[in-house]
Amino acid sequence: MEIEIPAIDEAAAAAAARRLDRLTKPQGSLGRLEELAIRLAGMTGDPWCRFERRAVVVMAADHGVTEEAVSAYPSEVTLQMVANFAAGGAGINVLARKAGAQVVVVDLGVKTPPGIPGVLDRRLGPGTKNMTREPAMTRAQAEAAVATGRELAAQLAAGGATLLLTGEMGIGNTTAASTVTAALTGRAPREVTGRGTGLDDAAFAHKVGVVERALALHRPDPADPVGVMASVGGFEIAGLAGLILGAAERRVPVIVDGFITGAAALTACAIAPGARAYLIASHRSVEPGHGAILDALGLEPLLDLRLRLGEGTGAALALHLVDAAVAIRDEMATFDEAGVSERTDG
Amino acid sequence: MEIEIPAIDEAAAAAAARRLDRLTKPQGSLGRLEELAIRLAGMTGDPWCRFERRAVVVMAADHGVTEEAVSAYPSEVTLQMVANFAAGGAGINVLARKAGAQVVVVDLGVKTPPGIPGVLDRRLGPGTKNMTREPAMTRAQAEAAVATGRELAAQLAAGGATLLLTGEMGIGNTTAASTVTAALTGRAPREVTGRGTGLDDAAFAHKVGVVERALALHRPDPADPVGVMASVGGFEIAGLAGLILGAAERRVPVIVDGFITGAAALTACAIAPGARAYLIASHRSVEPGHGAILDALGLEPLLDLRLRLGEGTGAALALHLVDAAVAIRDEMATFDEAGVSERTDG
Repeated sequence: MEIEIPAIDEAAAAAAARRLDRLTKPQGSLGRLEELAIRLAGMTGDPWCRFERRAVVVMAADHGVTEEAVSAYPSEVTLQMVANFAAGGAGINVLARKAGAQVVVVDLGVKTPPGIPGVLDRRLGPGTKNMTREPAMTRAQAEAAVATGRELAAQLAAGGATLLLTGEMGIGNTTAASTVTAALTGRAPREVTGRGTGLDDAAFAHKVGVVERALALHRPDPADPVGVMASVGGFEIAGLAGLILGAAERRVPVIVDGFITGAAALTACAIAPGARAYLIASHRSVEPGHGAILDALGLEPLLDLRLRLGEGTGAALALHLVDAAVAIRDEMATFDEAGVSERTDG
Repeated sequence: MEIEIPAIDEAAAAAAARRLDRLTKPQGSLGRLEELAIRLAGMTGDPWCRFERRAVVVMAADHGVTEEAVSAYPSEVTLQMVANFAAGGAGINVLARKAGAQVVVVDLGVKTPPGIPGVLDRRLGPGTKNMTREPAMTRAQAEAAVATGRELAAQLAAGGATLLLTGEMGIGNTTAASTVTAALTGRAPREVTGRGTGLDDAAFAHKVGVVERALALHRPDPADPVGVMASVGGFEIAGLAGLILGAAERRVPVIVDGFITGAAALTACAIAPGARAYLIASHRSVEPGHGAILDALGLEPLLDLRLRLGEGTGAALALHLVDAAVAIRDEMATFDEAGVSERTDG
């Protein structure tokens, strides 16, 4: 897969930094907000970039590995939550409304087709296969999922979106994300497997065993990220990897949510390392595998609020910080404008 | 000083927790947002508390200790920044606008009277005295500053404000805050002194020496927080301590900003320990003394963004999380409403 990711525009980043240094505050005193404003300028190539249209893309799919009893919730919840997203009642709907972002719900392969108006049909099958017995999907499906995500990014950008947020829903997808993370980072399954939506010790040990069995069966090659998706991934994870690639190709920044979308980001960067520069890590999930992903990508999350819901909720919360960074850059007075004295020693 | 702080309403907190547990998400999966919604219910006594009118109170005053060359900025900047606040061009104005909060600018003792419309005149003098030579203020002034803050909280609450944020401006006030923190926590000056708005190693060592001299001269008694304010405090720090007490007396939650307003919170809780339950720590400042304050108060900040501007900027950023917590509580669908299955194991 040949994907061209443009380099960061250092001149635009430097122009944003110069502006920030003229504002009525000690230089750098707004810490990570200033870093954000500078990074966003570098990504977009525009020191005055604005993000008036932004979308949280929530990709949903089911996972055959739920046959191994890895989740406390039945698979049907994926479909039920897709209906909840469409009706506006889920956590991501509430937080996206607060942050002024559209929620785009995409069916990549929910077991039963939702047939719900407003849910985009990008189905690749009725969920993945059970990866402890066979590959989760065919290589052709993995490639199609990535291509689907890239196309969706192109469509959203063509529609005016200048910032994308990643979200997901899929009962069983923490198990897939742990397996993908172990495959791509080389970490032990025990280090990157968590309690998902609430498992006790025995259930946790069982889940680690499921990850180990899937890895032993497929021996996925980290140099072949599409192959990793095919053997142990998920339709929504591969689709989100494609979305990230499609955004980065167009200089559209992406706010990544938690563990599942982090596994998608890891996959995207394994396909095209240049994508990393377009990622904003919104928060540090309580899922231990998420820390491994952030370390591997060298990303420092903005928030640490002990979230473990997914859906894009952490990304929607971090959007306020992106907006704050842009507002600071544009709306604060300069020393000259305000008649404020600068430091006496420098 | 006899101040009655009401106890937290555990029944209201429990009612909010029950509501959160019925929403379409794994219980507790929104982490600190859920904790916030529960704490806010306990503070206000209302599981459905709303915060439509909220104000950032920015108290400003000058510090005689600037004679000791502890800041890279001249004292005149306090007045210039008060004018900037009044004109809407400072960082706190930008972030408060974004978060829908009013900015209330209060002169507690800027060296030259601002005479600016919209700046509340609550002057206690033309700045404090140089605490390395004499007490920063009289005991009567310290008491008046606390009383002034309490009265302002009462006025704002009477005007409909249901949530207050603390902010400050005062060249030299990191030195006062370090001295107050050392006095009230017993930590060594070196541990609670930072580089303020940007000092090099020699300037830092000098600043530590100034704190040490002030402590050696006054030997402030931690059991007498008003006396600590008189000897080594600041008009705005004492005023903010009073504001916090006045808010807590009325069950009005307070979002505390960084180091300076943290020193005010520490003082408030030394006067009336019950005030602690009404505090929300917005962020962890890069000032090392702030960590000592958070430890002493047992507060975990919501954000860690390497901020060191003050003014209330961190509090304004955290306000988005308070709003998000309230929106989650009120706007998410319950399992019953959405027809979503609950966990299969309990």
